[in-house]
Order: sequence, then structure tokens, then C-alpha cells
Amino acid sequence: MNAIIGQSGGPTVVINQSLVGAVLEARRHGSIGRLYGARHGVEGMLRRDLVDLSRQSRPALERVAATPGAALGSVRKKPSEAECAEILKHLRALDIGYFFYIGGNDSAETAEIVGRLAAQAGHPVAVFHIPKTIDNDLRETDHCPGFGSAARFVALAFMGDDLDNRSLPGVKINVVMGRHAGFLTAASTLGRARADSGPHLVYVPERPFGIDRFVADVAGVVGRLGRCLVAVSEGIQDERGNPIAQAVMETARDAFGNVQLSGSGALGDALTQVLKTRLKGLRVRADTLGYLQRSFTGVVSPVDAREARQAGALAVRWAARGAAGGSVSLVRESGPRYRITFALTPLEKVARVTRSLPQEFLNAEGNDVTPAFAAYARPLIGPLPKLGFLEAPATPGG
Amino acid sequence: MNAIIGQSGGPTVVINQSLVGAVLEARRHGSIGRLYGARHGVEGMLRRDLVDLSRQSRPALERVAATPGAALGSVRKKPSEAECAEILKHLRALDIGYFFYIGGNDSAETAEIVGRLAAQAGHPVAVFHIPKTIDNDLRETDHCPGFGSAARFVALAFMGDDLDNRSLPGVKINVVMGRHAGFLTAASTLGRARADSGPHLVYVPERPFGIDRFVADVAGVVGRLGRCLVAVSEGIQDERGNPIAQAVMETARDAFGNVQLSGSGALGDALTQVLKTRLKGLRVRADTLGYLQRSFTGVVSPVDAREARQAGALAVRWAARGAAGGSVSLVRESGPRYRITFALTPLEKVARVTRSLPQEFLNAEGNDVTPAFAAYARPLIGPLPKLGFLEAPATPGG
Repeated sequence: MNAIIGQSGGPTVVINQSLVGAVLEARRHGSIGRLYGARHGVEGMLRRDLVDLSRQSRPALERVAATPGAALGSVRKKPSEAECAEILKHLRALDIGYFFYIGGNDSAETAEIVGRLAAQAGHPVAVFHIPKTIDNDLRETDHCPGFGSAARFVALAFMGDDLDNRSLPGVKINVVMGRHAGFLTAASTLGRARADSGPHLVYVPERPFGIDRFVADVAGVVGRLGRCLVAVSEGIQDERGNPIAQAVMETARDAFGNVQLSGSGALGDALTQVLKTRLKGLRVRADTLGYLQRSFTGVVSPVDAREARQAGALAVRWAARGAAGGSVSLVRESGPRYRITFALTPLEKVARVTRSLPQEFLNAEGNDVTPAFAAYARPLIGPLPKLGFLEAPATPGG
Repeated sequence: MNAIIGQSGGPTVVINQSLVGAVLEARRHGSIGRLYGARHGVEGMLRRDLVDLSRQSRPALERVAATPGAALGSVRKKPSEAECAEILKHLRALDIGYFFYIGGNDSAETAEIVGRLAAQAGHPVAVFHIPKTIDNDLRETDHCPGFGSAARFVALAFMGDDLDNRSLPGVKINVVMGRHAGFLTAASTLGRARADSGPHLVYVPERPFGIDRFVADVAGVVGRLGRCLVAVSEGIQDERGNPIAQAVMETARDAFGNVQLSGSGALGDALTQVLKTRLKGLRVRADTLGYLQRSFTGVVSPVDAREARQAGALAVRWAARGAAGGSVSLVRESGPRYRITFALTPLEKVARVTRSLPQEFLNAEGNDVTPAFAAYARPLIGPLPKLGFLEAPATPGG
């Protein structure tokens, strides 16, 4: 039987590691014939826009693996029933018995639907979901490939921005990706070098965001340090669960029906205006870290790259060994040393649902993370640079 | 005689290299006594908020050199005449004969004023300006320390964002720092890997920006490639020289009287709205690269770090050898190999004035750079990662 693989959803800097892991592993198994790559995920399956991945050279594949973005192209699309029927027709015609889909929970759902319809149609296809998301919001897995590298980018960005904000003190707000889950925003804390290092305040979607509380929090930090660095999830919500961003920007919806929160500076700019109005005389700036978080060339967590590669390879190995399908999940072994094993989880446990930051990672005030978060996330992002500070002895003139 | 050094203006990731270069060089010259560091530039000189840099250990200084931001703190301040008199009083009391100021053209002006008033007051101080700016807009120097690393960040950001935009095709606008000079925006082109790599359009302050032309340019690229990545300077202006951003955001002015263009997503969001309105049905997103361009930890051009260190060291060496003062400038030797020597330029040639992208770096259409720009800028940013692409043979299914 032949196999097909696609990439779906927002790309990451290691999503091609999973692709290349799968491609190289497929070559080791006689039970897998040709491996087709679908261009732009299910879109390519629908239009038979395919590449033959069996022919790519190993050195070329290794360069692809180290390259950000989805080398096959990606897509945000949940196929309709009619489209699924069309896809199944092509899968049958190409004698495809294995379907590998690299993506998040929406992609897991698409994979599950295709697998179910194929079984119903009497042409069973073993469907494997290879997890990928910078949001880290998939269930049943300790963490998601893609998160560690994005978290590394966010940590490095906040380390530098805190130093910038020390140099020219003021209030700085950085808006971080994360629609429902605050993992990536929480990662802004991982590079704190000193007790007075930012971010000094961290707001995530898991805790209701109140403007009055926000203003008071910032005023408190400025009173203490003369400056304040704030990390805010793009998906922060009020007490009733309404996104704060929704009120301040024209809402557009992506193809899955989600509100578009990225690709706009509106939330950061609105929070800046609030602070300038309520706390007069402050220098306030906002940046929205944006797509760089998932695409910046050269900032990769080595452990994330390795795990992404393994997840892709294992999906194929399990398929070749006759597994019926499922989602690859990462299991953290207990013990002082970071160690991961992999398991196969039923697709329906991963599709549609999302995971949030657990309570024990959030402080009581709802404006910072706890040491338990650092213990969880620190091994995922790789070593951070050590920062240097001038020791400042008082001088005769000082 | 003792010496004093300060950092001024927007920090960079290599401004501490210049500081440490100066500190270590000062220790080699008996003619220089104590070296004071002024906290937050002239602000620290005014308030006698100083640190004794003679006492910092070499390993601690090396860690500082590799750390982004201004280790002494920075400031945006042009001292008044009364404040200059106060500063001179302190310089006299501390027996200071050398004044080193790391910064841009505003900082060169401050240094020049202090030097002039000191001479008039009969207490001559040798004043040295050590160039620093990510904008690369200083006159009399081939380029500025700080530019190469910021340009490297911008090039890496666009490399990744182009791959992201290939994965999920659409129109993406990235707003790059640069108030009057488009050097940093032009650097977005340095990582183009293929003929169809973005940015596909580049708009800089040196060429008038017209909305109609912009819309037509984007429509043309989308028609050709199905996607478009755009680099826009924050300082783009209309035909009459009015900043485009000014019309779309509430204007605030910084301490030098400049319009605040950074720290807001408004320009990118406004251009997004224009495209969504005029070119219906397009997926359009905007990011403003923001302060990460000058502060991101770990993205440093090696040649930039080395030159920043040398510029600081040479200012001190020339001072110790009796030079009257000036601004350190970098001179590029002609020939096929990149080679820089350093010279001392009169301060008044650098203060107040700025430099723009020369005409030969801009294409006739005013929406891209020329190969001459790449020849100029490529040696400044260090080697870029090689990207990999899937070769895509047509398949039987394709």
C-alpha cells in the first residue's frame, strides 16, 4: 500500500522535522510503497496536487528539515462531506493505505473524519496524527512539537526587551500568540535573569482580565521599579469569556470559524491607550510579537527539533507495524532528568478538544506564573544565553 | 585626568561591546585615571549618578559585552544650557578630561555642545562620539555599529515569514524600524533564497509612498505568485514628506521632538485595511517588528560585535594619545574583500545631520532595492542559514 502525508494549520520552525522524520522512516519499511506529499494538506488531496516524496535526496531532505514553514504548504480547511468523498476517491485510485497528517486539534479532527469515512466506504485507511502547534494546547500529550521553539523565541524576545526597558525605562506591553491557552505567553518568564527582571506581569486567557486590575497592577510595578514589562496573550478574555481583543478590533474569522487575533496590533495599542489615559505621564509602548513566533529563522530548540523528528518517524514506524491509527503523544517520564517516551492515543481524544494552562502553573493573583510552570517548560526550550550586568559600586561622585 | 563614558538613544545588541571596548582599553593607558560610567547618559552626569568602571572584573565585563541593551542605562535628552553648566561643574569636580558618548546623531550633538561649553569655560574636555544606531543613518561613516545585528534580525525574520507565507498564502505586511532612513527595511531583502522569495515589495522613506501605487503593486504580485510579502519602513512618507503613519495614529513626540512611530501597530493595521477594502477577498495580515529589532537576545552579527568593540577601544586609544576629539567613523577599503579601517571625524560633521539610502540602492520603480545594496550590506550581517525546499516532481496523481 502507498502512503500520503500532509501539513495543516499554522506552520512552525520544526514542522518539517516531522515531515522529514516520516519520509526517511518510510524508506526503511517494505510494507510502505510510494509516499506522496499533499500540497497544502487536504487541499492537495482534493485536487491531486501531490509530490512524490520517495524521490527526494537525503541531503535535500535534511536542508528541508532545518527550514521553517511547511515545505509541502499548509491549509486551514475542514473538508465537507462531498470533499471527503472526492478525497477518498483519490486515495483509492492511488492505492493509499496510510494517511499521516501533521497539525493541531483541527487537523486531528480532519484526519479522524477522513479515516471514519474511509472505513465506512469499505476502503480502510490507517490514519495517524502527528502533533504540531506552538500554542501547546493539544490534549493527551505532555507538550506539542513546535511549542519549545516558539517558547524559546518568546523567552529570548522578553530577555532582550527587558534589557531595552531597563535602558530607557517605561511601560512596555508585548502581545503573545495564544487564542485559548497561555502556554506561550507564560514562556515569556523563562529568561528572567534577576529578581527585578521582566515580564513583571503575565496575563493569559485562563484567568479573567479586568482593566481596573490591569491598571492597578502596572501602577504597582512602576511604583516599585520605575518601569514595567507586561506579557499579554492575544486571547485574554473578560469575566464572561469575551475576548478583550474583540471589542477593540474589527473581527474577521478564519476558515475554522475562529476570531482572527493575530496579524494586528490593535490589542496592544488599545491597552497602551488605557494606560496612557489612566496613568498620566507614563511612556507606554506595545509590540505584538506576531508571526515571528512561529517562523523566525535560526531560533530552534534542539530538543523540540529532535522530538518533532521522532514524532514523524514513529507514526510511520507504527503504521508499518500494523497499528490501526491514532495521534502520537509525548509522555514525560517522572524523575529529576527530562526524558520523553512516545505513545499512540485514539484520535477522538485529541480532535476538537483543547488544553489550557493547569491551575498550578498560575499564581493566586492571576498575573504571573508559578515555579511549577518553569519546571515544566524549561527543559523544552534549550539553554538560554547568560546575561551580564554591571556591578555598581557607589562612587565618590555618586 | 579621569574620564567619563555614557550611552544614549535607543539601545542595540552591541552597544555594550563599545562600552566594554572602551573600559578595557582605558586600563592600558596610564594617562587615563579613573573611568566613570554615567547612568542613563547625560542624566547621570547631571545628577552625579555614576559607577566606577575601573573596578569591574574582566569576566563580568565580557558577559556585559555579550548582553543586549545599554548596561549603563540610556537616555533621550538634550541638556539645556543650565544643565550643561551643572554637568561641567561635576566634570571639573571629578577632574574629568575625557568624555566618551556612545549614540546616534542626537547624542553626537549633545557631546559636541558639552565639549564646546567646556572649552569656553576654560576647562577643556576631549569629547569622543562612538557611533551606534540600528538605523544606519549617521554621516561620514560607511555604516554604524548596531546596524549589522539589527539588519541580521530583520533578514532572518523575513526569511521565516516568507516561508510562513508560502505555507498559507496571503498578503503579509511587515513594518520595519527606520524614521528617515530605509537601510533596515532594505535589509529585509538580504535573505531572499529564490527568485520568488519575499519581500516582493519594499517601501522606504526615501521614496514617496502612494496608496494607489501600493495597491497596484500588491495586486500585481498576488496575480503573479498568489501571495505577497511587503516590507514597509515605519517612516514612509507621502509626496509632500508627511509621514503616512502620522495620519493613522495619534501622534506622540519623543524628548527630541520626533514623532513616535515605534511601539504601535497602527501603520500596519491601516495598510491592511486599505488592501482589504480595495482588493476584496484577500487574506491580509500585518506585523510590526518593533523593539525586538534592536534588543533580541542571541541574534548578533559577529562582524558588528567586533566593530562595535573596536570603535569603543579606538576612541579611548586616540584620547590617550592626545587627540582633541571627534566621532569614530568606519571606512570601507576598496577591493573584493570586506575590510574596515577606522578614522576620527569632526563632531560637527556628524551631529544633527542624518544620511539616507543612496539613490543607487533603490530601483527605478521605488518599490525594491538594487543588487548594489546587497553588495553593501551583505558583509555586515554575518552568514545566513541555508534554506531547503522540496523539489517537486510531478506525480502520476499530480
